[in-house]
Amino acid sequence: MPTTLFGPKFSQDANAFVPSAIRALAPLINDPGVISFAAGVPNPETFPAGALLESCQRVLSGMPSRVLQYDVTAGFGPLREKVAERSQKKGIPTDAGGTLLTTGSQQALDLAARVLLDPGDVVLVEVPTYVGALVTIAARRAVPKGIRRNEDGIDIAHLEETVATLREAGRNVKALYTIPNFQNPSGLSMTGEAKEALAAAAERLDLAVFEDDPYGELSFDSSARGDFSPLAARIPHRTVYAGSFSKTLSAGLRVGWLHAPSDFVRKAELAKQASDLCSSTFNAAVLEDYLAHNDYDAHLLRLREFYRDRKEILMAAIRESFPPGTWFSDPAGGLFAWGRLPEGLDSRVLLSKAVAEARVAYVPGEPFIVEGEGRPFLRLTFAKEPPGKLVEGARRLGEFFRTELG
Amino acid sequence: MPTTLFGPKFSQDANAFVPSAIRALAPLINDPGVISFAAGVPNPETFPAGALLESCQRVLSGMPSRVLQYDVTAGFGPLREKVAERSQKKGIPTDAGGTLLTTGSQQALDLAARVLLDPGDVVLVEVPTYVGALVTIAARRAVPKGIRRNEDGIDIAHLEETVATLREAGRNVKALYTIPNFQNPSGLSMTGEAKEALAAAAERLDLAVFEDDPYGELSFDSSARGDFSPLAARIPHRTVYAGSFSKTLSAGLRVGWLHAPSDFVRKAELAKQASDLCSSTFNAAVLEDYLAHNDYDAHLLRLREFYRDRKEILMAAIRESFPPGTWFSDPAGGLFAWGRLPEGLDSRVLLSKAVAEARVAYVPGEPFIVEGEGRPFLRLTFAKEPPGKLVEGARRLGEFFRTELG
Repeated sequence: MPTTLFGPKFSQDANAFVPSAIRALAPLINDPGVISFAAGVPNPETFPAGALLESCQRVLSGMPSRVLQYDVTAGFGPLREKVAERSQKKGIPTDAGGTLLTTGSQQALDLAARVLLDPGDVVLVEVPTYVGALVTIAARRAVPKGIRRNEDGIDIAHLEETVATLREAGRNVKALYTIPNFQNPSGLSMTGEAKEALAAAAERLDLAVFEDDPYGELSFDSSARGDFSPLAARIPHRTVYAGSFSKTLSAGLRVGWLHAPSDFVRKAELAKQASDLCSSTFNAAVLEDYLAHNDYDAHLLRLREFYRDRKEILMAAIRESFPPGTWFSDPAGGLFAWGRLPEGLDSRVLLSKAVAEARVAYVPGEPFIVEGEGRPFLRLTFAKEPPGKLVEGARRLGEFFRTELG
Repeated sequence: MPTTLFGPKFSQDANAFVPSAIRALAPLINDPGVISFAAGVPNPETFPAGALLESCQRVLSGMPSRVLQYDVTAGFGPLREKVAERSQKKGIPTDAGGTLLTTGSQQALDLAARVLLDPGDVVLVEVPTYVGALVTIAARRAVPKGIRRNEDGIDIAHLEETVATLREAGRNVKALYTIPNFQNPSGLSMTGEAKEALAAAAERLDLAVFEDDPYGELSFDSSARGDFSPLAARIPHRTVYAGSFSKTLSAGLRVGWLHAPSDFVRKAELAKQASDLCSSTFNAAVLEDYLAHNDYDAHLLRLREFYRDRKEILMAAIRESFPPGTWFSDPAGGLFAWGRLPEGLDSRVLLSKAVAEARVAYVPGEPFIVEGEGRPFLRLTFAKEPPGKLVEGARRLGEFFRTELG
């Protein structure tokens, strides 16, 4: 393409766009010759390709004119009904009308940002938090502020204090973004008590809550410490809840959804109309058909076993191989574990050396941390590599860090 | 859902969102008992459901882990290559790197709006223009200004004068939005000379051009008056070109694309990352496989015949049935014809009566017209109804207007 004159015409938003800090590491962490703990994606072997093909056959034979045509902006009605039914079982007071299908839960986040955020508005985020949320917040020129979290949940005192300070300074603190279950990157989940306390604080502080729950179906053990019922079941009137099939049935179909109160849904629908008219009718119909003809809950049980087994293998290997002073979360679900290296090790600085020498890739903690020190932290996924490579990778990486520690 | 406190938190953009003025007419124009000239969509019978199913089978059997997984934000590389090759043949100097796959061409428009428009910026649009563009422009709180067009193309004198006046008044006039081929709603196409003149004017006036070309493949006769080569072939350095498979292979797969200079593509990619990470890998792979295993150009020839036949039937019936003093465009492609009723008939006011009495629906001209008088105009599509109903509908509607005229 020729040289261009677009530069001076870019919008203020465009001049504030930030690329994902993880994508900047892509040349390093996507080296195909290494054992990768760096991938941020589910294992595609777990997707039911055969059953999805059967669904493609049924919907393309049964109603080709419908599934190949545009749909209403809210998305394919029968899938909205099925999604809403499942969410009702989790205690969310919703129905098909309170549900909007989206291109993955990332679009739910973007629609919420368009509906709620003006430049300069503050969004409270956990430390650490999902990098994709920071990208979307930045694209609205809104400002993320970090709130400390511990193994149980968000530090409510720090939340109250931060909001008070910001509001005294005249800032418009509108919303809180949280992943309560099996968080990306930390793997941590909130306890039921922590969720109650957060819900109460959101009430007191009059915060809108964006509850991002892409991993909610991936609990390893329902008796584990987390309480996987959503905030949207506790404070539905101020919560936008986002779910997704990306981690359970297919990321490549790009089907997610949001539930929210009706005034929010109406605005989000207008934002989506402006964004892309509607998501794929076909993909929504394929997933609706899949849910009608398959035992999704049985599939989820197999999926949880798959990831739990790999998680246990990785965590055992880490305990065996990493240097003393290492701390790791013990995820009760999801795809990720979060670690803190012993004093003196800098995960960002060491990454290229780890790839070059140990032939292992991970994601350093820094991109996930809005305020505070990211250098001791790292995110590992147990989703990508088979068991043997999880063990071998942990062994090599542990040895590498031990050597670095001297 | 319970009552909610979201209202006071809506963003300034959200408070400026406008619903599509056509959607407001939905209860009237979607009456299933009427003959409909109102639909704004392609005929789904023309979509190759069988061949698309074969492609689903091939990609889900051949590379399930790839097509069910996330993709890079720019979209499935092999489809970008094929799309770019086709565009090169139209004279657009692009390649896979200058191509971004989008969720329909509507998303291309939205990404361009995010990359280019600040609140208050002016976008020049044709009178009449596509309603979905007005929705997207409004969602950025930018301001559309109408430029007259005639049967050949845009009125360049009016364009120059409008830009000069607005700029003298301190307005930031950044871009021009145009559908040069078989426009929605007018069915009109620009001549080659009109495109040359527009390209030269865009240069002189330093305007970014958004060239929306969803109907470009649907020319009824390549020897017709239009020159279907794109503006992007003439002024690529200031043009964002958007194309789509929605009118030719499937609207429900939601696969479109944009071509643009590299600095714009980089910004649009960041906007898309924030919007939805990536569009469906699966859908892009299915279309790429379709293009690899089928004769798309032969399919397009059949499609052109299908729509040309219906267009001719409708236009002949209109000539026969409508009252004297009616004017209609004679579309050289696309899905729509645009008419002006004789003095004294108001298309908006008469719609509900036409539906109730003549049992025929159309879209009144007003929603498409930014400035000026919409009342005499109406849009008819020949895409939806079979030939017999096109004739019967035109007969009834013509009779209805004759009666109204008294």
